[in-house]
Amino acid sequence: MTPTIALIGGAGQMGRWLERFFRSRGYPVLIADVETGLSASEAASRAEVVILCVPIPVVAEVAREVGPHLKPGAALMDIASVKQRPLAAMLDAFPGEVVGTHPLFGPGEPDIRGLTVVLCPGRGERWFKWLKTLLEEAGARVRVTTATEHDRLMSVVQGLAHFILIALGATMRQMGVTEEDVQDFSTPTFGTLLSLTRKLLSQDAKLYACIQVQNPANRLALRAFNEAVGDILYYIQRQDVAGLVRLLEEIK
Amino acid sequence: MTPTIALIGGAGQMGRWLERFFRSRGYPVLIADVETGLSASEAASRAEVVILCVPIPVVAEVAREVGPHLKPGAALMDIASVKQRPLAAMLDAFPGEVVGTHPLFGPGEPDIRGLTVVLCPGRGERWFKWLKTLLEEAGARVRVTTATEHDRLMSVVQGLAHFILIALGATMRQMGVTEEDVQDFSTPTFGTLLSLTRKLLSQDAKLYACIQVQNPANRLALRAFNEAVGDILYYIQRQDVAGLVRLLEEIK
Repeated sequence: MTPTIALIGGAGQMGRWLERFFRSRGYPVLIADVETGLSASEAASRAEVVILCVPIPVVAEVAREVGPHLKPGAALMDIASVKQRPLAAMLDAFPGEVVGTHPLFGPGEPDIRGLTVVLCPGRGERWFKWLKTLLEEAGARVRVTTATEHDRLMSVVQGLAHFILIALGATMRQMGVTEEDVQDFSTPTFGTLLSLTRKLLSQDAKLYACIQVQNPANRLALRAFNEAVGDILYYIQRQDVAGLVRLLEEIK
Repeated sequence: MTPTIALIGGAGQMGRWLERFFRSRGYPVLIADVETGLSASEAASRAEVVILCVPIPVVAEVAREVGPHLKPGAALMDIASVKQRPLAAMLDAFPGEVVGTHPLFGPGEPDIRGLTVVLCPGRGERWFKWLKTLLEEAGARVRVTTATEHDRLMSVVQGLAHFILIALGATMRQMGVTEEDVQDFSTPTFGTLLSLTRKLLSQDAKLYACIQVQNPANRLALRAFNEAVGDILYYIQRQDVAGLVRLLEEIK
């Protein structure tokens, strides 16, 4: 029997992306969102695979809402950019199979081929294997890890990377230096940093705010960042070129 | 009469780049460096255009050394990545024409076409105009500004940009997260940041240390950066998604 997929919060950008993906692979898809006639519980009760595509802060709440309505043999999944809290919330909310996923790409991608999806097993093997096979057959790179390790790596790959780009934008604003001001004096490196910052700021601000706030591992990454900044500033304030050269050689 | 160019510190990478550039435009070039038979003073006394291609911290010292030996009608120039202190030092060391320059590219560039050179007029017009025309005829984008404005903009374009990349590398080292660890979990944004960091760390550590230490405007940029980081952390520590969204909207 072909499983039915319920996308809760499915009218959002990633929800619509997943709708196209699953339909193109031949799966019936139910969409529940604030403006659809179908309620989250109703959609969840009629599907084999229930995927929460809601903003990170409400994953736990929506999991509790739909949990009691899932079929016993169904699976509860999410696509949040952080994994520890959402996965724990889903395991609490539903006694059946649970899988945490994190597609490492945005809704602008036309095709999943070559893109990475992280899977964090929660409970059960049947639907985990089904999803992994489905993604791999579609050409995705699947990486399996724990929610803790996912969040630790993402505190660098997303948390820290976005943090420094946001800080660059905020610093320029603080200094009153505009893109126009620096345009004539730009270097290739700076031009690349500026375009990454511009791209980040043009996207969903709430998602990027949640990625900063909701990953518990970010605290460690930001503490390490603060120490690293302190080390570099130590040498700059002392005008100690030799010390800074040593630091640069060490991190090479 | 075709002017002779003296490159002091001319055996370094940018010195050799300039040697090829001036020779290709038909100018006789004299090279003085620690390992050449020709002394800096001797080379300076025989040229119409004397260009200091030495590391930033020794520009002032070398300017004082060669200043008394320049022909009265000659010009003293430099190529340092910061401009206020080197330009002031050259104006002090030599009473004739002085031009500060900053080629915004590295010695790996095969051709000057399309690349930017910043010129900061010091004293006199004749050699300034000669250089500007020469660079423009060769296809370079020439930008003229004061040393103060150059350093202010470069405190962002170079100082801050390099600072955050160095901080990213230092943070990863502090956390024990290697490139291999994150390879499987990378995003396009993070991949780009990591390759910029790798490129920076593979280059001349002393030059990058000097760019941090020797630009007096970096203090202001780093103070603004510290404040920006504090603002972002304020919201993260309070788990205040709405506050962070406001900040992201403001800097957009």
